[in-house]
Amino acid sequence: MAPTKDNLSAVLYGINDLRLEQRPIPVPKDNQVLLQMEVVGICGSDVHYLVSGRCGPFVVEKPMVIGHEASGTVIQLGKDVKNLKLGDRVAIEPGVPCRLCHYCKTGIYHLCKDLFFCATPPDDGNLSRYYVHDADFCWKLPDNMSLEEGAIMEPLSVGVHACKRANIKIGDVCLITGAGPIGLVTLLSAKAMGASKIVITDVLDVKLKMAKQLGADYTLKIEKNMTEEQIVKKVHELLGQEPNVSFDCTGVESCVRVCVSSTGLAGVVVLVGLGKIEMTLPLTNALIKEVDVRGVFRYCNDYPTSIEMVSSGRVNVKPLVTHHYTLEDSLKAFHTAKTQEGDPIKVLIHANPNWKPS
Amino acid sequence: MAPTKDNLSAVLYGINDLRLEQRPIPVPKDNQVLLQMEVVGICGSDVHYLVSGRCGPFVVEKPMVIGHEASGTVIQLGKDVKNLKLGDRVAIEPGVPCRLCHYCKTGIYHLCKDLFFCATPPDDGNLSRYYVHDADFCWKLPDNMSLEEGAIMEPLSVGVHACKRANIKIGDVCLITGAGPIGLVTLLSAKAMGASKIVITDVLDVKLKMAKQLGADYTLKIEKNMTEEQIVKKVHELLGQEPNVSFDCTGVESCVRVCVSSTGLAGVVVLVGLGKIEMTLPLTNALIKEVDVRGVFRYCNDYPTSIEMVSSGRVNVKPLVTHHYTLEDSLKAFHTAKTQEGDPIKVLIHANPNWKPS
Amino acid sequence: MAPTKDNLSAVLYGINDLRLEQRPIPVPKDNQVLLQMEVVGICGSDVHYLVSGRCGPFVVEKPMVIGHEASGTVIQLGKDVKNLKLGDRVAIEPGVPCRLCHYCKTGIYHLCKDLFFCATPPDDGNLSRYYVHDADFCWKLPDNMSLEEGAIMEPLSVGVHACKRANIKIGDVCLITGAGPIGLVTLLSAKAMGASKIVITDVLDVKLKMAKQLGADYTLKIEKNMTEEQIVKKVHELLGQEPNVSFDCTGVESCVRVCVSSTGLAGVVVLVGLGKIEMTLPLTNALIKEVDVRGVFRYCNDYPTSIEMVSSGRVNVKPLVTHHYTLEDSLKAFHTAKTQEGDPIKVLIHANPNWKPS
Amino acid sequence: MAPTKDNLSAVLYGINDLRLEQRPIPVPKDNQVLLQMEVVGICGSDVHYLVSGRCGPFVVEKPMVIGHEASGTVIQLGKDVKNLKLGDRVAIEPGVPCRLCHYCKTGIYHLCKDLFFCATPPDDGNLSRYYVHDADFCWKLPDNMSLEEGAIMEPLSVGVHACKRANIKIGDVCLITGAGPIGLVTLLSAKAMGASKIVITDVLDVKLKMAKQLGADYTLKIEKNMTEEQIVKKVHELLGQEPNVSFDCTGVESCVRVCVSSTGLAGVVVLVGLGKIEMTLPLTNALIKEVDVRGVFRYCNDYPTSIEMVSSGRVNVKPLVTHHYTLEDSLKAFHTAKTQEGDPIKVLIHANPNWKPS
Repeated sequence: MAPTKDNLSAVLYGINDLRLEQRPIPVPKDNQVLLQMEVVGICGSDVHYLVSGRCGPFVVEKPMVIGHEASGTVIQLGKDVKNLKLGDRVAIEPGVPCRLCHYCKTGIYHLCKDLFFCATPPDDGNLSRYYVHDADFCWKLPDNMSLEEGAIMEPLSVGVHACKRANIKIGDVCLITGAGPIGLVTLLSAKAMGASKIVITDVLDVKLKMAKQLGADYTLKIEKNMTEEQIVKKVHELLGQEPNVSFDCTGVESCVRVCVSSTGLAGVVVLVGLGKIEMTLPLTNALIKEVDVRGVFRYCNDYPTSIEMVSSGRVNVKPLVTHHYTLEDSLKAFHTAKTQEGDPIKVLIHANPNWKPS
Repeated sequence: MAPTKDNLSAVLYGINDLRLEQRPIPVPKDNQVLLQMEVVGICGSDVHYLVSGRCGPFVVEKPMVIGHEASGTVIQLGKDVKNLKLGDRVAIEPGVPCRLCHYCKTGIYHLCKDLFFCATPPDDGNLSRYYVHDADFCWKLPDNMSLEEGAIMEPLSVGVHACKRANIKIGDVCLITGAGPIGLVTLLSAKAMGASKIVITDVLDVKLKMAKQLGADYTLKIEKNMTEEQIVKKVHELLGQEPNVSFDCTGVESCVRVCVSSTGLAGVVVLVGLGKIEMTLPLTNALIKEVDVRGVFRYCNDYPTSIEMVSSGRVNVKPLVTHHYTLEDSLKAFHTAKTQEGDPIKVLIHANPNWKPS
Repeated sequence: MAPTKDNLSAVLYGINDLRLEQRPIPVPKDNQVLLQMEVVGICGSDVHYLVSGRCGPFVVEKPMVIGHEASGTVIQLGKDVKNLKLGDRVAIEPGVPCRLCHYCKTGIYHLCKDLFFCATPPDDGNLSRYYVHDADFCWKLPDNMSLEEGAIMEPLSVGVHACKRANIKIGDVCLITGAGPIGLVTLLSAKAMGASKIVITDVLDVKLKMAKQLGADYTLKIEKNMTEEQIVKKVHELLGQEPNVSFDCTGVESCVRVCVSSTGLAGVVVLVGLGKIEMTLPLTNALIKEVDVRGVFRYCNDYPTSIEMVSSGRVNVKPLVTHHYTLEDSLKAFHTAKTQEGDPIKVLIHANPNWKPS
Repeated sequence: MAPTKDNLSAVLYGINDLRLEQRPIPVPKDNQVLLQMEVVGICGSDVHYLVSGRCGPFVVEKPMVIGHEASGTVIQLGKDVKNLKLGDRVAIEPGVPCRLCHYCKTGIYHLCKDLFFCATPPDDGNLSRYYVHDADFCWKLPDNMSLEEGAIMEPLSVGVHACKRANIKIGDVCLITGAGPIGLVTLLSAKAMGASKIVITDVLDVKLKMAKQLGADYTLKIEKNMTEEQIVKKVHELLGQEPNVSFDCTGVESCVRVCVSSTGLAGVVVLVGLGKIEMTLPLTNALIKEVDVRGVFRYCNDYPTSIEMVSSGRVNVKPLVTHHYTLEDSLKAFHTAKTQEGDPIKVLIHANPNWKPS
């Protein structure tokens, strides 16, 4: 399968300035593969870059190809590649570390200071027709998984990583604040790893309804006038006890506070959502309960777990996919993601020109 | 060794109202021992109760015998006691749990909700001539340890527990904020467990001098006009790198902030010092570094470690002891602890009437 | 619900000398409950005691009530009991530790050297009409669980404990040697905790069929003439890879050898089955693979997990129950367990005289 | 510092056929450095290759440069090297993994199936004047460490790794069987990590004397006629209790048996010494004690710890060095190591022609 000459790519030039343009087709190095891009999902961070030119500490300073939740098909192999063959369908893990540093050697390569990461400035992403990537960060999809599911492996790995950080095990009782995409993948992961009871909160009924459909035992709609104490009490009532693990998937201070206040003795609060840099928390509360507050940054060694969870049928990610666009319609796709018109969860862009809506 | 009739006890009646009075000599239950009290140290919490009638959530609501950092000699045995014999010199672990609940059964008995704890309202402490305690929470002192060292096992166990929570191991690089008694026992414990480089901070030269004497590699005096950034930078310069473990031993927000901001990737911040209930922290900073923030509440299964550390000569706690008083002079002892006149670290009260200053 | 005067009990007097006789109805201590016994399963160890008067190092030296896989109903409360009320249906955890020693305090109470354990000489078991037990080792059954399931919590906890020792997590690939009751509960537990692929071996088709029904992905019938190498090769072929966790549930040397030889790098071999005391193993093989060989002794803090697994519907233990007898027919029940006539898995004895076969 | 043309190398051609010959000076790749070799120690495995042409599963099938316990000086840098500069003195970690596989990514790179390892067939070692190695596996020595200590970092890392596998912490009580070089580095590591009491066994007084000098609390000479039971009893008597960690550093079945039988409840037996492939062990004993038997294969992420232990003064490895030879005298050096004449512990060969005995 030789590449064509068409490498249409979605390039972010600045705030609200996303352009489709041709880029040269890259050539794989010895340990890389050239990929026909297939499906690329839109992440909240992509929207941040589009709308504000930045996400947390990362700032777009020169034109950057967007996209990092992706699957592709191997169409060319570097000469040292052994783990893949032509035609393999793969989920693309977007971060490639230096392989040399303390973090890489001790199994936490996602913290590598020389990490290449798709569509985190200044690194280009992969919303394009063709893209090269290190072969060992391309994970072959089993036959029973679709390329759409392959693209979802990226957000799902965030949920998996959060649950591994929390050491979720059978019988755990959980609170999840926020039922957006990250809250939902955390819910799916926690259930698959054995959580027995999960309550999830949000301000929107539509999100809670989806959470319920995906396995949440209880949902709690947060109303404007509810106090922290009221929410905590409600969480305890719904679960019949204190959660031993809480996940904040909002990055909002009031939600992180509810997590800290709700969690029981020797419990864990995992911070999944990136939010404002400074937060005021009831920290003494956490201290005397010996609660751990743990941050989560992306994922590490989680793709195989994510793929296994879907392939084995433990987790069904299909309901997360709500919208489809072609690469040519990328701006429309981003419009949907940005405006949330039509209550999108995952908006997918199909980069293969042969894709046809089913 | 039969008890006399004298059971002089130091009883806190209210704010700044500590009285010496006779109390009945208690009778041990089947699994308890009667102790001739020997040495009782004054803790910061004791001073809090004296000065403000409370410590954190605990409030003195009726007269309470003070004292919980203690050693004693076994003078009577309950009929089921097997681990001790008459004349044994013991360090008294002041918290006795219910032994029935989930926390007791899973090895974190200090979080037991039915914990008896000496001199935490409403439980009486042991600054008295005689006292009964569950035999299995009396730890026999080896021959090469003094009764004064026995009393110090309580604060030392706080340091040991903090280091276990941080999983301190050989080669760790640490920051400790605060060189008061808790900072110092944390320093001693971290060094004994293998920390390679430790910087400790304080606002007082006299405390930093003691920290240096006890093994701190570097000391950093915090001046009024120093910014958080300046302190963090200084910490990194002194250590030649970011600490991978930070201990806050102050409970002061600005110090906790320095801990969070200083700690390196995948590091740990341990909160040892109890302070104000709400704190504003640079939490996103911790999140993207995957730093854990862990609270510490007292200790659990740590007395044997503390005793071993001193008995083996790995740790020398003697320099911590700066002042001695008799039980009759308890009010003077508390005056010294309260006013910090003479720069006390540990003020010890000798409850055995036969004690003579050496 | 006052007890009647009938406390018919099954007492083992010696080899093949099991007698039904009346025993006094015991009186609960302050922290105990009196139970109307309901369902008592027969364990392999019970049969060992019956047939040979011993099980491993434990020898029957005086008449002993048999039975330890049991459920009951609370009919009288000791005065200090808070966790239960009259009429509660409970699963009985048969081991009660001293609560005072190092092992009890550090959360591994099953290793307590002063453990009382039902029907392990010299301690009486509970195959009788009435029985007293420490209330905190009686686990209340949720409404959606039957008393039969309650009795199965004991063997299930062996499987749960084995999986916790192996740290089973999502995606693990397992070998289980032996599809007897212990192999089956290990299978159920491993699946519930996330094992993705499990192959189980046995010499009997009927057992493998049951294993398949309970969720085994692959079964491997061991034929007399198969060599170790052939079995290992077959295991790898079926799984498509080396297992990272192997459980021996036979205690047979050749099976333990297969576990050690099959397990992949950095894997774990868990020894669940008690067998002959000396075994010859390919130990260098384990060493250079950095495989851990871990023993399992009963269970500890596992009943809540077992109950949760069944109550939540993750695990269905009902297919394990193949035979029912009344207390009066206990000798027939033991005959079935001993001879394996009718291919029993779990033989249950109903101690409540009001029980009627459904 | 340009290399000369002299690259004298010690090449093993077959059993007892070690030759000194000139080899081309290698050229570093982009991520490698060229090293002036300085000090190379002789390991037991080197002697195995010399005497029998093999070590465990590894067989010498073509001429191979011997040597892997080494230090060197950086004299040329590949263009991508950032962690080193010319003139840096380094300890050389001899195993370089593929950096791509599951094991490499999860922090256990020593189990990588594509590991290059110096002087393990077919890979050449570094007993030569010049040698190239991946820069990130060259660990810079602090100024206060000598090149001889640098060479010792290899065996010391074996001890460090064994202790990490055992999770040695303050207060642990240990048995070490065998006081050869590996027993001694394990002793040094365990002491540095906090072991409180260690008994070490051997059949030779001279080795036990050295062990005592290096910090063993107790030594036990094994006499020919001693039974397993007698040895175990003696171990318990000397320690005053059962060890909670035992290290076999012999690979001899009778020693491994003593480790398994001696170790207390919930303890750990670490197999460090490679010995005969099949061993008969009292496995049920381990099982009911829930003792873990863990293998150790070389080391992983341990060089920084080893260097820190020596640099900080916690560990003194100098007494291990008993003999010195020049590269030209390599055959004499191997003769000493082989015959054990003069009771060598570590025999060092100095590869730098400018070395002069001090």
